[in-house]
Amino acid sequence: MKSIPMTTTLMALTLGAITSTAYGKEFPVVDGNITQDDVRKAQEAWGAALIKISKTYKDQGPEKAREVAAEVLDKGYGYNMGAVMFKPTLTTSPNTFRVTKEGALSYFAGGNKTYPDTGFALKGWEKYEFENAAVHISGNIALTMGKVRITNDKGEVTEVDKTWGFRKDDQGVLRIILHHSSLPYVP
Amino acid sequence: MKSIPMTTTLMALTLGAITSTAYGKEFPVVDGNITQDDVRKAQEAWGAALIKISKTYKDQGPEKAREVAAEVLDKGYGYNMGAVMFKPTLTTSPNTFRVTKEGALSYFAGGNKTYPDTGFALKGWEKYEFENAAVHISGNIALTMGKVRITNDKGEVTEVDKTWGFRKDDQGVLRIILHHSSLPYVP
Amino acid sequence: MKSIPMTTTLMALTLGAITSTAYGKEFPVVDGNITQDDVRKAQEAWGAALIKISKTYKDQGPEKAREVAAEVLDKGYGYNMGAVMFKPTLTTSPNTFRVTKEGALSYFAGGNKTYPDTGFALKGWEKYEFENAAVHISGNIALTMGKVRITNDKGEVTEVDKTWGFRKDDQGVLRIILHHSSLPYVP
Amino acid sequence: MKSIPMTTTLMALTLGAITSTAYGKEFPVVDGNITQDDVRKAQEAWGAALIKISKTYKDQGPEKAREVAAEVLDKGYGYNMGAVMFKPTLTTSPNTFRVTKEGALSYFAGGNKTYPDTGFALKGWEKYEFENAAVHISGNIALTMGKVRITNDKGEVTEVDKTWGFRKDDQGVLRIILHHSSLPYVP
Repeated sequence: MKSIPMTTTLMALTLGAITSTAYGKEFPVVDGNITQDDVRKAQEAWGAALIKISKTYKDQGPEKAREVAAEVLDKGYGYNMGAVMFKPTLTTSPNTFRVTKEGALSYFAGGNKTYPDTGFALKGWEKYEFENAAVHISGNIALTMGKVRITNDKGEVTEVDKTWGFRKDDQGVLRIILHHSSLPYVP
Repeated sequence: MKSIPMTTTLMALTLGAITSTAYGKEFPVVDGNITQDDVRKAQEAWGAALIKISKTYKDQGPEKAREVAAEVLDKGYGYNMGAVMFKPTLTTSPNTFRVTKEGALSYFAGGNKTYPDTGFALKGWEKYEFENAAVHISGNIALTMGKVRITNDKGEVTEVDKTWGFRKDDQGVLRIILHHSSLPYVP
Repeated sequence: MKSIPMTTTLMALTLGAITSTAYGKEFPVVDGNITQDDVRKAQEAWGAALIKISKTYKDQGPEKAREVAAEVLDKGYGYNMGAVMFKPTLTTSPNTFRVTKEGALSYFAGGNKTYPDTGFALKGWEKYEFENAAVHISGNIALTMGKVRITNDKGEVTEVDKTWGFRKDDQGVLRIILHHSSLPYVP
Repeated sequence: MKSIPMTTTLMALTLGAITSTAYGKEFPVVDGNITQDDVRKAQEAWGAALIKISKTYKDQGPEKAREVAAEVLDKGYGYNMGAVMFKPTLTTSPNTFRVTKEGALSYFAGGNKTYPDTGFALKGWEKYEFENAAVHISGNIALTMGKVRITNDKGEVTEVDKTWGFRKDDQGVLRIILHHSSLPYVP
């Protein structure tokens, strides 16, 4: 397993039309299904976004980092469709689940007195890699489960068990509608 | 089994969003599936739109009728997603299929020299009824087939065999992505 | 446009698992979505089946042809899921729609006193070609519309406007759940 | 608008089939979508199954408990479709994910030397309750996230954060294709 290069731009997949040439004749095709390649790009984009928020925090401070995090949530999560099932790694009851954008933003970038968050994305993350255990694709939904390892600026590695649910919207953008992250069980 | 209080704030849901109260607790639900009721309403809306275009033509002339027809296509067909599979009742080769909005508008409201159309929706339609032979629903897609009968201002009835494919978009709007209409076969 | 070679075997697509090697690691993928290639093969299979029934009738008589037709309906249509929306080219009211397997079998192979059918698939079909106007894919559903031309043993060509709806079942088999066929409109 | 009589014979429908009476006329509907009620029943069934395995173990011993657990996996999980994304509460690397039925069975009922499992379902579970944070439904897929609390025969409560992904198969059975369970984070 090798680490993923962090040059991927944020999720900007286009649904759009394809022109097929089956039978030697061109005809338009509308295809809103998620592909395995879509999924790979969206997984890479998540890591790239995390690192970008961390770097923005270091270079430009917390306010700018929060702006970037909000943009990531707007473009890459499904809060525009309604509640997102988000169980971050380090949350506790009664704020375990962050089904609103406000709660998710607080988790990633802190600065919200309603939640006891210090900003998970602000912790100097520099490297990201993931390893799928399995993937299930059905229509405009893709589900993935696996290990994610992120490394901070001190070289410390955090490993989590992570499940994602992606939904491809009408513009062809994959949005995270489900995100369950947990530390490995220690007997 | 009793429910346990939770403090999660519910948010405004936009995509066919529902608040469920299963197990005595409210929680947000995002549900983009087409229902049978959605289908019935969309079938009724098509007939209402046809009659509205006819009436607009009679009351306000061809230009205004064309505006109404364009609005019907914008709001009720899926041309915003790409090619629509539209085989109108009375078209002939090489213009049988109207996969673009331009071609569909010409069929309904005429006034386009590219197509030999006189405007199907301008023919004084006053009454509309349909009778499903069967319906198939899968995810955000619904398919219907049946008889449609429309009556003009002279009381003449036109019967067609009609197939529709609807797709529910991210805003919860059913759009026609497939429309095959044909006169009954005469041996 | 060229004619389709008739060597395709009947629809036998497997859903099954795929092993992906994204990120240099193998992991299993379950993917039930229809692909454009699935659609092309299913369209080819329909033509191959029509010709096979015709040839069976010529070589082995009506009873054997009916057996082959029943097998085609069992394997390639969705009657096992419930009603199929089938509007054959040459049916008339009150038997226009053949939502049951019995009605479809009568249309293709005749021999059923309930319906006034002579057996459409028994008419010496030897060649088949189709030309898509457009295709729409969403999840396990694919919709196609276009021209189909079939040629009999006298070299006579019949052209129809044809819409198909395919559904990929849990075994990965594409089944026709919608089939609307009509002769071109003659002004 | 009045309905018009039609003589189509309705057939026995198998796939979530419904007879609709819209417009005063009956017609068959094939509808494979997951409903909220389906989801509730599947969540309840999971708890009932856990308790049943525990009780079987107590009353009839480990072998019979393993039989019941295998039946639960066969009927309620999607291993028949391929890999299931299953991250049980108490597994550790390199056996964290149980994408095969064998691995899942070992987790629930033990008795497999390949895995270091003592049988999670054998621990005297008597009560089960769950509390959804949110639900997302799309086509034949439903996703849920929330708290699950199970109580053993000593009255001890275990709380987990649980995500499920259900897929409705062609026979209308909801199968778990994703299951991520984790103990609450302790700071």
